[in-house]
Amino acid sequence: MKKFVNDPKDFVAEMLQGLALANPDTLVYVPECNLIHRADAPRADRVSVIQGSGSGHEPAHVLTVGPGMLTAACPGDVFAAPPVDYVIETIRRLASPRGVLLLVNNYTGDRMAFEMAQELAEAEGIEVRTLFVDDDVAVQDSLYTVGRRGVAGNFFVMKAVGAAAEAGASLDELVRIGEKVNAATRTMGVALTACTPPAKGTPLFELGDDEIEFGVGIHGEPGRERRVIASADELVGDLVAAVATDLAVTAGDRFALMINGLGGTPISELYLAYGIAHRLLTNRGAAIARSYVGEYCTSLDMAGLSVTIVRLDHEITELLAAPAEIAVRVF
Amino acid sequence: MKKFVNDPKDFVAEMLQGLALANPDTLVYVPECNLIHRADAPRADRVSVIQGSGSGHEPAHVLTVGPGMLTAACPGDVFAAPPVDYVIETIRRLASPRGVLLLVNNYTGDRMAFEMAQELAEAEGIEVRTLFVDDDVAVQDSLYTVGRRGVAGNFFVMKAVGAAAEAGASLDELVRIGEKVNAATRTMGVALTACTPPAKGTPLFELGDDEIEFGVGIHGEPGRERRVIASADELVGDLVAAVATDLAVTAGDRFALMINGLGGTPISELYLAYGIAHRLLTNRGAAIARSYVGEYCTSLDMAGLSVTIVRLDHEITELLAAPAEIAVRVF
Repeated sequence: MKKFVNDPKDFVAEMLQGLALANPDTLVYVPECNLIHRADAPRADRVSVIQGSGSGHEPAHVLTVGPGMLTAACPGDVFAAPPVDYVIETIRRLASPRGVLLLVNNYTGDRMAFEMAQELAEAEGIEVRTLFVDDDVAVQDSLYTVGRRGVAGNFFVMKAVGAAAEAGASLDELVRIGEKVNAATRTMGVALTACTPPAKGTPLFELGDDEIEFGVGIHGEPGRERRVIASADELVGDLVAAVATDLAVTAGDRFALMINGLGGTPISELYLAYGIAHRLLTNRGAAIARSYVGEYCTSLDMAGLSVTIVRLDHEITELLAAPAEIAVRVF
Repeated sequence: MKKFVNDPKDFVAEMLQGLALANPDTLVYVPECNLIHRADAPRADRVSVIQGSGSGHEPAHVLTVGPGMLTAACPGDVFAAPPVDYVIETIRRLASPRGVLLLVNNYTGDRMAFEMAQELAEAEGIEVRTLFVDDDVAVQDSLYTVGRRGVAGNFFVMKAVGAAAEAGASLDELVRIGEKVNAATRTMGVALTACTPPAKGTPLFELGDDEIEFGVGIHGEPGRERRVIASADELVGDLVAAVATDLAVTAGDRFALMINGLGGTPISELYLAYGIAHRLLTNRGAAIARSYVGEYCTSLDMAGLSVTIVRLDHEITELLAAPAEIAVRVF
């Protein structure tokens, strides 16, 4: 294994320490429960929006805490749901009279932790709602999931809900918005290589020198099929066809289009892929009104990418365009 | 080779097409000379700031064109300087009565192309100055370079000069600022793996399973030594020691600190490395006033990172904090 790591069991804690040191004025790190939260949270006049998941998907979700995005993120260890006691402690610390919204990608382990924590929090008198994200069209059930998996499309739910929460929306209103964005969003990805979790030290699965996993999950779960590597036109074309068919893309529709890198793919290749996807969708008569190219939800060092489309209406467009602020600094 | 690529000879053009399609309102792409420029440039009341280099270092430099950053970027092919005729055509199209500033990382091929283009442009009556960036402390001369190499520290020169140009500074003033920032900046990097150029299809150099290149260049040039992989504490510690010694870091100094990913390293590892570097510098009595963690100047899919420090004064701090806008979208 060639990674920047000390003792693998400290990997997540040391990453979060670095994040906190880089953002001393805006973020608070609570080591006891792997919690990163906005320094100005909770606020009595705003719903707190919290996401948890396994680590290894950064920038999701610890790097997306900030005004107009998440109020807090409580990650588990790499590819492991956060323990229930971390989640309940997070909810307690971020509880607001306006309520708490939990965003959870649809994996069985995460569902269990968050549903149990919600029950405990409600018993303590905290109003909590939970939104499950399931944008991955690759497979119906999967290695760690009943139903569709939640992957990079989670970004759009988080951005829209975060913007609305920042503007003072109620908990009911946030649930409505989040469900609507999730229903408008589809993703599918492809892995060119496996990823290597620090504590394992070897690749999570085996891929031959010319093999790819088409429809891969963000924890390396199997997708639709093993294939031989092909041209970017063919790979991206097949991903676009999958999401466009599932969302029934028709001429005249307006979309946000995201090419999400899975961790080990350079942004040059992501822009090349973006051009292909953009042309294919506009060839179908769709308009691309917002574009996203980069890393939003990764799988450690996996080479690969996913394509996400979101059908836009006026409300979603406004929420995606609203100002936000997160730790990731590009200039 | 496992990459998102069609015909490798079209790699750069297809990447630039994708970039232009993703930013139709703000960027213009001129295929004849690999040029990406701001849609509102040139402006008669602003110096045009142009950077060229080989491709493969994205986001540098085509993704850093925008208000408060570059006016334009004219890349060559992967790891190859842009041809002189591309550079002169770029200068002609972006010529402003206030003048043109060329930013060039110190590599022999890039120097030749830009110096020749400057001479040709001056013969046509265009006022041109050139700034060379040479922040890499690893080695004195290198595979493609006489003198020190220009690497990720180039970001700070570009950001400071771009901010000053946006505010209306003169060409002389921009040269003064750029030279000052370059003199205040030091970088050193380490490669855990080699990178694979699309047209070559195989890794650019060989590294054993437990070997790293300490002090690597962004084209895979040899650094100070081949070593056996060690802990993050040791690797980052040695990089920090190298730049801190070279810049003579002393207690009371204020710095910007950048951990730059070389393309294949996940941002989780970069934040872990940031924490180590931050603590080591503050242990020396220095204050970290601005932090940068992510990809700024890459080497295709190379796993590795570089550490950059910039000694701050009031002027540099203000210029780094000035607003800017580029194609990379994080929310």
